Amino acid sequence: MGRTSDAREKILGAAHSLIELRGYSALGVAEICRTAGVPKGSFYYFFESKEALALAVIDDQWATQRSDWTRVLKSDAQPLQRLRQLFEETEAEQLAGQQNCGTVSGCLFGNLTLEMSNQTEAVRTRLQEIFDAQVDMVDTVITEALARGEVTVSDTRAAARSVVAQLEGQVLFAKLYNNASQLGALWTNCLALLGADSPHVPTAA
Amino acid sequence: MGRTSDAREKILGAAHSLIELRGYSALGVAEICRTAGVPKGSFYYFFESKEALALAVIDDQWATQRSDWTRVLKSDAQPLQRLRQLFEETEAEQLAGQQNCGTVSGCLFGNLTLEMSNQTEAVRTRLQEIFDAQVDMVDTVITEALARGEVTVSDTRAAARSVVAQLEGQVLFAKLYNNASQLGALWTNCLALLGADSPHVPTAA
Repeated sequence: MGRTSDAREKILGAAHSLIELRGYSALGVAEICRTAGVPKGSFYYFFESKEALALAVIDDQWATQRSDWTRVLKSDAQPLQRLRQLFEETEAEQLAGQQNCGTVSGCLFGNLTLEMSNQTEAVRTRLQEIFDAQVDMVDTVITEALARGEVTVSDTRAAARSVVAQLEGQVLFAKLYNNASQLGALWTNCLALLGADSPHVPTAA
Repeated sequence: MGRTSDAREKILGAAHSLIELRGYSALGVAEICRTAGVPKGSFYYFFESKEALALAVIDDQWATQRSDWTRVLKSDAQPLQRLRQLFEETEAEQLAGQQNCGTVSGCLFGNLTLEMSNQTEAVRTRLQEIFDAQVDMVDTVITEALARGEVTVSDTRAAARSVVAQLEGQVLFAKLYNNASQLGALWTNCLALLGADSPHVPTAA
């Protein structure tokens, strides 16, 4: 059992790295197994298809990211400060990826949304659930900020969706220009989108 | 010459449709030619590689979209109204695509950015040029609005990039949820990002 679990983790890790580098469609099972250093027969022992592997990679990444988002967005800090920390950690993570691999890899969920959501309903549904969960978490923080009179939105859920959309759009640009520092705009844009009272921070700068 | 030009257009059209449906990596030259109804030999007469075809599809789409953006963003309307029209046309176009194909196909440039920009430098460079041009066009409009005292941004280029990033992020969500009506948030979000004085429009709604 120890060895087979290890093989599953190796396949997941290799698939994650390869999907980040080249996307899902371009990959074959043989290449994934070669990169993972496991025999090709192992693949179908753990995953019934390449799509099942994609879902496992997505779940694995979301387990890590949800834990990070929960730590940040449910901390004891003031609501807007929690959002700021989320953006700062996102920028730091993309920058670390750039330093390790030479390229900004972007957001796995955004990448797979644009590549796969129109091709497989199982992946589309899973990615919808993840973005719904992200929007829920941001919505909760915005609702707290609204109760404290720190923001002026009329619809907290729509505002949360816009904040996450802005995050995805800016991460797309960070990937395109291979420049994670563009993510510095996220915090000021978030304040602007939320109608936050923060006169010392220029909007959209 | 008439027949060969026709074949090139057929290949371009088939490739565009297939890339919108399934992305670039998943496609093979044989399938593109089969869909286009041209012999496979024709392909290499017109395109030296699949990457060259991708660049031609991108250029073709940008020629159309640049013409649309120019018509809207350089019209005689007031600056912010021009931006509003751009968002309304974007929403209408995604809605029309949804009605024709059953799915919101999203933005070809955004899709290819997330799928291909880390794989081929030629595609990355072309997509950077296109997004640079989009940001330039929006920047010009914001600069006009700023001169009229209608917005309060401190850096028009950063603001333009944020507006385009928001557009890409919301189009990503429209594709994921297969729901073009989510793009209705673009205009109010744009006003918020620009610090526009428009008290009758709720922010981020």
